[in-house]
Amino acid sequence: TMCSNKIQASLLVVSYSTYLLLGAIVFRALEKNAEKEQKMAVIQMKEAFLQNFTRLTAADVEQFVKNLTEAVQRGVYPVGNESQTELSNWDFSNSFFFVGTVVSTIGYGTLCPKTAAGQIFCVLFASFGIPLNIVFLHQVGKMLSLLCERLGRWLYAKGMKKKKIKFLTLLFFLVMGILVFLCLPSFVFQVAEGWSYSEGVYFAFITLSTIGFGDYVVGKQPDRNYPPYYRSLVAIWIIFGLAWIALLFNL
Amino acid sequence: TMCSNKIQASLLVVSYSTYLLLGAIVFRALEKNAEKEQKMAVIQMKEAFLQNFTRLTAADVEQFVKNLTEAVQRGVYPVGNESQTELSNWDFSNSFFFVGTVVSTIGYGTLCPKTAAGQIFCVLFASFGIPLNIVFLHQVGKMLSLLCERLGRWLYAKGMKKKKIKFLTLLFFLVMGILVFLCLPSFVFQVAEGWSYSEGVYFAFITLSTIGFGDYVVGKQPDRNYPPYYRSLVAIWIIFGLAWIALLFNL
Ligand SMILES: [K+]
Ligand SMILES: [K+]
Repeated sequence: TMCSNKIQASLLVVSYSTYLLLGAIVFRALEKNAEKEQKMAVIQMKEAFLQNFTRLTAADVEQFVKNLTEAVQRGVYPVGNESQTELSNWDFSNSFFFVGTVVSTIGYGTLCPKTAAGQIFCVLFASFGIPLNIVFLHQVGKMLSLLCERLGRWLYAKGMKKKKIKFLTLLFFLVMGILVFLCLPSFVFQVAEGWSYSEGVYFAFITLSTIGFGDYVVGKQPDRNYPPYYRSLVAIWIIFGLAWIALLFNL
Repeated sequence: TMCSNKIQASLLVVSYSTYLLLGAIVFRALEKNAEKEQKMAVIQMKEAFLQNFTRLTAADVEQFVKNLTEAVQRGVYPVGNESQTELSNWDFSNSFFFVGTVVSTIGYGTLCPKTAAGQIFCVLFASFGIPLNIVFLHQVGKMLSLLCERLGRWLYAKGMKKKKIKFLTLLFFLVMGILVFLCLPSFVFQVAEGWSYSEGVYFAFITLSTIGFGDYVVGKQPDRNYPPYYRSLVAIWIIFGLAWIALLFNL
């Protein structure tokens, strides 16, 4: 059964990864062109404004501000010139990140499907993806609780009473979790993103609680150099952090 | 015990409402002034631009676009003149709505705490608010499942077999839920918000799954007249819809 458990766990990891991968590919295919068209429209509007702005009235400027505001609210970043439209929000890496925020229900909303096809696919994708993610996190949580069991067995061998062991492993699980999943990552975000420590704690908590406001998102500042593997480390932090919180709620 | 159950349920409703109410008041107190300052800064920037825009260079316009984009991304709506700064995003109604998106972990992110005090309070508030919300939704779910039990007893009195009853009530619960919590509200959103039907389904699903991107939010279009009690109806829909989904996952 030890071996069949391992096979079951591997199958789960493979199907979970495949599901996310395929989702990312479909979303990119559905959204990339629509996004490009929206970007082009904003850039044309800006260019028309730039060519004529010495002859415009205050009302024209107000209309320009309004159009610009709506573009930003729709997720278009109107700073810079035409060449920047080549950098799509819906490249594979961003699409995969988006799919992760869907199945975990974090839903930052920094990237959203705008086409009807993308939105309908999102509903179908999440309908199966969210339960699959719960099963996957449950499997990860099992690994985390094995660590606690080992600690318990070690204390039992030292001759400690069972009731005391249960309390100590629970305390260990809670305190270590807060240190490893909140305090330490907040410090990493402080360094890598240039946030204050309290902003780091706020971001870490808002992410792992799956509230996911999207006001702070890691790796999104265009003028910063991020350490290598930063994004992968963040993904691992989110997976184990969510599994840890799911375990806490099941205790 | 019937009576003590009712007392327990009433106590839960009262403490849940009080918790949200106090939270809304604290957030408003913490955030209102900081928001006003940010709005004033954007308006001053716009006024300076408007006074000088016939003498500005293209680089000045680009900088203006950049500043404006950042303001919108921070949640400031820069359209209109100074008088609109009096309309705070952090009035009581909006603050209460915000608190609801925190404890439910929907987290649209259309309104977020910007001050360090507001962010730290948000972490503390959610730490107790999310578990309290789960307990509250569990209580609402009990009410919903009582409806199914009644249907089951009625079918049992008609002489139906227990296994068939269980299957039928489950089917009834699923189909009725999809109709009442997804199909019908999507139609209401189509009429009240001017969205397409598929946009309504997308919004309803993204909300009840607690993904909460924040790309579509009800009652937020300044140029639309919403029916009376629209917001209250939406709140009731969210509460019962979340309770319904929580029950589905526990089946
Ligand atoms: K969210
Ligand atoms: K969320």
